[in-house]
Amino acid sequence: MSVTLAEVAKFIGGEVVGDDSTELAGVAGIKEARKGELTFVSNPRYERYVADTSASAVVVSRDYAASARPDGTSLIVVDDPYDAFARAMTLFAPEGEIVSNGVHPSAVVAESAILGEGISIGANVVVMDDATIGDGTTIHAGSFVGRSAAVGRETTIYPNVTIRNGCVLGDRVIVHSGTVIGSDGFGFALSGCLHTKVPQIGNVVIEDDVEIGANVCIDRATLGSTRVCRGSKIDNLVQVAHNVVIGDGSIVVAQVGISGSTRVGSGVVLAGQAGLSGHIEIGDGAMVAAQAGVTKSVPPGERVSGYPARKHSAAKRQYALMEHLPKLVGSVKGLESRVSKLEDVVERGGAAGAACGGRAVDGVERSDEEI
Amino acid sequence: MSVTLAEVAKFIGGEVVGDDSTELAGVAGIKEARKGELTFVSNPRYERYVADTSASAVVVSRDYAASARPDGTSLIVVDDPYDAFARAMTLFAPEGEIVSNGVHPSAVVAESAILGEGISIGANVVVMDDATIGDGTTIHAGSFVGRSAAVGRETTIYPNVTIRNGCVLGDRVIVHSGTVIGSDGFGFALSGCLHTKVPQIGNVVIEDDVEIGANVCIDRATLGSTRVCRGSKIDNLVQVAHNVVIGDGSIVVAQVGISGSTRVGSGVVLAGQAGLSGHIEIGDGAMVAAQAGVTKSVPPGERVSGYPARKHSAAKRQYALMEHLPKLVGSVKGLESRVSKLEDVVERGGAAGAACGGRAVDGVERSDEEI
Amino acid sequence: MSVTLAEVAKFIGGEVVGDDSTELAGVAGIKEARKGELTFVSNPRYERYVADTSASAVVVSRDYAASARPDGTSLIVVDDPYDAFARAMTLFAPEGEIVSNGVHPSAVVAESAILGEGISIGANVVVMDDATIGDGTTIHAGSFVGRSAAVGRETTIYPNVTIRNGCVLGDRVIVHSGTVIGSDGFGFALSGCLHTKVPQIGNVVIEDDVEIGANVCIDRATLGSTRVCRGSKIDNLVQVAHNVVIGDGSIVVAQVGISGSTRVGSGVVLAGQAGLSGHIEIGDGAMVAAQAGVTKSVPPGERVSGYPARKHSAAKRQYALMEHLPKLVGSVKGLESRVSKLEDVVERGGAAGAACGGRAVDGVERSDEEI
Repeated sequence: MSVTLAEVAKFIGGEVVGDDSTELAGVAGIKEARKGELTFVSNPRYERYVADTSASAVVVSRDYAASARPDGTSLIVVDDPYDAFARAMTLFAPEGEIVSNGVHPSAVVAESAILGEGISIGANVVVMDDATIGDGTTIHAGSFVGRSAAVGRETTIYPNVTIRNGCVLGDRVIVHSGTVIGSDGFGFALSGCLHTKVPQIGNVVIEDDVEIGANVCIDRATLGSTRVCRGSKIDNLVQVAHNVVIGDGSIVVAQVGISGSTRVGSGVVLAGQAGLSGHIEIGDGAMVAAQAGVTKSVPPGERVSGYPARKHSAAKRQYALMEHLPKLVGSVKGLESRVSKLEDVVERGGAAGAACGGRAVDGVERSDEEI
Repeated sequence: MSVTLAEVAKFIGGEVVGDDSTELAGVAGIKEARKGELTFVSNPRYERYVADTSASAVVVSRDYAASARPDGTSLIVVDDPYDAFARAMTLFAPEGEIVSNGVHPSAVVAESAILGEGISIGANVVVMDDATIGDGTTIHAGSFVGRSAAVGRETTIYPNVTIRNGCVLGDRVIVHSGTVIGSDGFGFALSGCLHTKVPQIGNVVIEDDVEIGANVCIDRATLGSTRVCRGSKIDNLVQVAHNVVIGDGSIVVAQVGISGSTRVGSGVVLAGQAGLSGHIEIGDGAMVAAQAGVTKSVPPGERVSGYPARKHSAAKRQYALMEHLPKLVGSVKGLESRVSKLEDVVERGGAAGAACGGRAVDGVERSDEEI
Repeated sequence: MSVTLAEVAKFIGGEVVGDDSTELAGVAGIKEARKGELTFVSNPRYERYVADTSASAVVVSRDYAASARPDGTSLIVVDDPYDAFARAMTLFAPEGEIVSNGVHPSAVVAESAILGEGISIGANVVVMDDATIGDGTTIHAGSFVGRSAAVGRETTIYPNVTIRNGCVLGDRVIVHSGTVIGSDGFGFALSGCLHTKVPQIGNVVIEDDVEIGANVCIDRATLGSTRVCRGSKIDNLVQVAHNVVIGDGSIVVAQVGISGSTRVGSGVVLAGQAGLSGHIEIGDGAMVAAQAGVTKSVPPGERVSGYPARKHSAAKRQYALMEHLPKLVGSVKGLESRVSKLEDVVERGGAAGAACGGRAVDGVERSDEEI
């Protein structure tokens, strides 16, 4: 498949500088791109690669000096090259895997399940009683949709996903392989030395346009719903405990863990491997740094890092000071020695001083042991 | 389905205050509950919500002032409201998903497998040669039971679980979706620059009443057994390496990692994302805080936190001091300046002093660079 | 099955001390081994157990004093007991699970898929169009091989693995259950408050002799390939983001997370739960400690730990100093008090001094508040 530069430019709303009849057959990174391919440069650090690229065309920002255009390379000038290139890629992306025309004969679909139009249900998929699958939705091989679960329209469920009974997924949701939606929340009541299971009779609600990575776990609520709101994106191996709510348009990076009943606001970023305590609130627009351990609520817009998590600016200063601790210890030892000498001199000034050196050395030795 | 307040009270061993003929049709949280529902209050912080609840009945503690009972709301008075409510919930919990009456026709069960009475084996389940499944056990769709594996009685295996060959599960065990029991331990012998695989010929033993969350990994032992003892509860995405032993009634929260051959005692709590080194011992009743990195054995009953993990009380004091490091650095700078001035005064007192200010400023500037 | 000590010694290239006709039927650890079993001792700490072992034979190092050989126990003397024992174990390891003779009738294999000779494809496996499976490869029950994916020769895919379209696996690769290869990388372009998905049109390449644990996620590249090079070993629950490259013979321990486009060299060790930022480089032979948070590139051969990760030697010193912070604070308070006294004495020496004690107490109190 091949499109002209003019067509791409029109699709992404950019202006061509160069030959707009150039044929493009694919996309690649600036360093790897070959003749016939489209690339882009967004980060100014990479602009120096434009001169040497073999790409036939480059998506660039308005700030980029068009005069630097190398021979034989055309440009498409846009406001946001990364976003524009992402959209251009959809012109070249291979078609989604054809899973099945309708329901694959090996799939096991309950008679009471309600299937929309234009669906594609792959080999060995299991759909239980009273589940509903919306129009245009694709469920890849080996996935499971539990009793009374509801999956919306134009949603994609990749292979080997588990959606347990009663859970609800919206439209245009994407769920990657191995993910489990609606497993029981981790709730036990301690009676004596036995842990009595607290039944988890709520569900999980995933709103429209959410994407969930591979091997993610989202537990059902004890009562009510665990909820991921519209447009949020969750990376691989994330843990979302029972009764958690994640607001609109938030980003949860790989291996984050969110404990029970915590509320994450809208537009929040939780960076990789961060951990959140239960029953706290992360305000809208807040950012939690990678590996941070958040034990208290975070106000809207705040950036936190470290363990226990605190304002990122304060945490950074503490990390810097940590590196200087050995010098600080040295300074304190030096001061102890100097003060001991002063004390001896001052004492000797008053009475008749003696054995002044010994005292100072003592001080240094003692602090060697202590610190 | 509906039950009377009197029936619920009898079931959980509580005393009714109010109308014991009240009909109850469901359970909910104190803020969400509506007429016809049962709720509870355990944490005194939530007692203020009792006045406004729409619930028809509330499970409360003996300490709770019964006089505060709002009109139209009945109470059930018990010793432990959380535990009692958890048990009451089982009266209202929807029946477990009906997986199959017996073996689903699409399941692939080896002829040599031994199946108990009253079992339910779902669609596309695979049971290999010589495996045994105990009476009353349910295996949901898409799960795999390997050769010679043994699953006990009244155990529940949720969809898409993998139980590899030779592993043993007890009675009333619950395993959530995506979990892998009996994958090879991570063992390699280095010969030159090649890593030679050490065969992992042991198995995994899961004792009675254990619950294991979703996407958990429990590796088989190199030799012998990796073992999770009676009544322990493991949350999602936990890693249990080869030859680990977890004692009775322990709690392992989400995303914890336990390295090879480590022994975790009974009644231990490992909080979320904690990591344990290999070949160490965590004593009975010990508690490891969230994200702690435990590099040495922990005595029974001890609480540890931080990295490397140390007594929680000491760690907390260190975190507090960390926040004050900038002030400590300021204090040391101030002292250096004051001591320099004193030295100049004392020197000048003995000999004829000169250029005293320069020295002090020097001291401050030097420490600015250092710290 | 039983072999003689002479046969084992020949197989692992060792010398027998004792009765080389001893029959051996299995292997076990030094403490658990019984008569008729082979064991080993590699760590000098365990040599004391040799005297009491019930094993019929022990693999020992040349350094081990053969004279200490207990009655009735034979020895095999080798250069590296751990490596030699690992190889000896293969003589006793049970045969791999017989998955199927050829393609199991319940498997769904596309007509256009190309299958090698001597393959074994288990129950409910799904192989999509144009996929290729090499000679002698085993794919266990419930696994999925996507369109145009290529799996090499003598490779083992355990149950419930997902290999998405276009991904390439080499020869003698092992992939454990629940692992997902080729899920979409986590890439979004922000336009306004919406996250636009960046199509992930690259793939994943797993080279020869790589082993990948259970529930691992390896995302496909945005463009090009995410790559794990020859002989590297990846433990359970690891996250490998899009466009990451892991060099030859590296070890990635459980729950490690590697962010997008980071390059990990050859012979690197990433210990458990470590996290790596994106777009950085970990030099050949570097070691990253457990739970470390690596935010910058690491030079070849360097050991780093902590958050943010720094040279392990410096980090260790900082941890030690952290423990002594309370004493350091005490020292500074003590100094403030002593300096205040000196200042009072020196001032009094010049003018007529008064109220000297109050000042010193002030100093201590002030620093109490500050620190």
